[in-house]
Amino acid sequence: MCLPACAMQLAQKASRRSLLRKATVAAAGLVLAPAAAQGENAPRFSFRRVLDLTHTLHADFPFPMDHAFSMERISTRPKQMWNIYRWHFHEHIGTHIDAPFHCSEGDTVERIAADKLFGPLVVVDIRTKAAADPDAQLTPDDLKAWENRHGRISDGAVVAMCSGWDSKVGNARAFFGRDDRGGFHFPGFHLEAVQFLCEQRQVHGIAVDTISLDPGNSNTFPVHHYWLGQNRWGLENVANLREAPASGATIVVGSPKVTGGSGGPSRVLALLD
Amino acid sequence: MCLPACAMQLAQKASRRSLLRKATVAAAGLVLAPAAAQGENAPRFSFRRVLDLTHTLHADFPFPMDHAFSMERISTRPKQMWNIYRWHFHEHIGTHIDAPFHCSEGDTVERIAADKLFGPLVVVDIRTKAAADPDAQLTPDDLKAWENRHGRISDGAVVAMCSGWDSKVGNARAFFGRDDRGGFHFPGFHLEAVQFLCEQRQVHGIAVDTISLDPGNSNTFPVHHYWLGQNRWGLENVANLREAPASGATIVVGSPKVTGGSGGPSRVLALLD
Repeated sequence: MCLPACAMQLAQKASRRSLLRKATVAAAGLVLAPAAAQGENAPRFSFRRVLDLTHTLHADFPFPMDHAFSMERISTRPKQMWNIYRWHFHEHIGTHIDAPFHCSEGDTVERIAADKLFGPLVVVDIRTKAAADPDAQLTPDDLKAWENRHGRISDGAVVAMCSGWDSKVGNARAFFGRDDRGGFHFPGFHLEAVQFLCEQRQVHGIAVDTISLDPGNSNTFPVHHYWLGQNRWGLENVANLREAPASGATIVVGSPKVTGGSGGPSRVLALLD
Repeated sequence: MCLPACAMQLAQKASRRSLLRKATVAAAGLVLAPAAAQGENAPRFSFRRVLDLTHTLHADFPFPMDHAFSMERISTRPKQMWNIYRWHFHEHIGTHIDAPFHCSEGDTVERIAADKLFGPLVVVDIRTKAAADPDAQLTPDDLKAWENRHGRISDGAVVAMCSGWDSKVGNARAFFGRDDRGGFHFPGFHLEAVQFLCEQRQVHGIAVDTISLDPGNSNTFPVHHYWLGQNRWGLENVANLREAPASGATIVVGSPKVTGGSGGPSRVLALLD
């Protein structure tokens, strides 16, 4: 389902290198079956512990508009038998999934198959360049550098940008990189990187530790439009990626299963050896 | 943290039997380390595929009061760049978790540690007796019968009642077992069963395929009060348990991480070999 694009040439270069290398993902806890990732030949994942990649959500979680999340108490112990709230929120608050439908005619959130909600977690660390430039992007070169070190990105992987931005979540101005003219400055994926992941690799989803798959200084959101337009999903506001290994963990996305939704707050866990 | 209770005697009987048997959970995909379920001695889980234990949530999902779930469209493509909704819902709608705080002073939902959100899935099938009697309960005898066949319930397990009730979810009257006097009739855990699981086994959580941990004909909710009062969690409205093995799967609970919540809609997956 991928569009032909200028990324093809970059992809072919990476592909030639990977053929020479016969790269394998030999990370602890993940054994890849030799054939297709289906049925009895599906890869086997193993784990002993979990790492929580989810921010805690509350009314003050950074969001570009007010009243994006609130709780209304409707029953209180001990006066009543139960403690219960009603929640009111914008679908794209907190650690959340963008379903294809968010900016395409693709799948709404409940239609993302459960077998697309887990896979090998690829953590691409761009913290050094992001610290020097808040407009930094995760480029095809960053993906090539990851593959040179860890082997070809596995079928079914989820590729996550670790920019270090999750540590700014307590300060909305810093998290959004607001400038004096109201602009946003935070890292994101480069269009050519996601074109490579779509056209040359079989990746289930992408993830960022910022509020947007696109960098903050984008006004046209090409990564959203291209990636979700390919009926793929993305995660935003992911936490704690710096504590995950670059390779070898498995991500599980506890996305909401709500009819017609364009996304929604999700519990995201990394399974570790 | 468990209360002494009348279940102790039942538990001791079961415990003697398990000593005689030296039962082990030898199910495919789960290898138990010989020592404690912590650190390097933690059990290793493995899987190749997932089974979705989550119902799809929508405005007509069965609930005892109106307007428990709604979506408000706030942005629509292609007139606008994005499709986005706001959601409004009662915390205990759909497939959801009950945090201890729902009816105790225990943990709110975000405080349930991530390492308590996965574990061996124990499926106790009471479909035959539930089909004959909608007021059926999962009793200590059902747990003993499961252990006689599959071995001692593992530390960190999640024990699920499979009553077959999930197949009624499209018909609220049938799902709730409403009688002509407005009463409810559906299966649930017996108090002594959860006392056994708390006092004699190290179980992280319990799960039901009905709307309540307690059977529908209960007015005092002793299972809720006892189990959540022990700072344990429960899952309600779980789906597809009949497709899970009685033993050998691993459950992962994608519960919401919302400050102060008493529970909330959750994505629940079983990891299978």
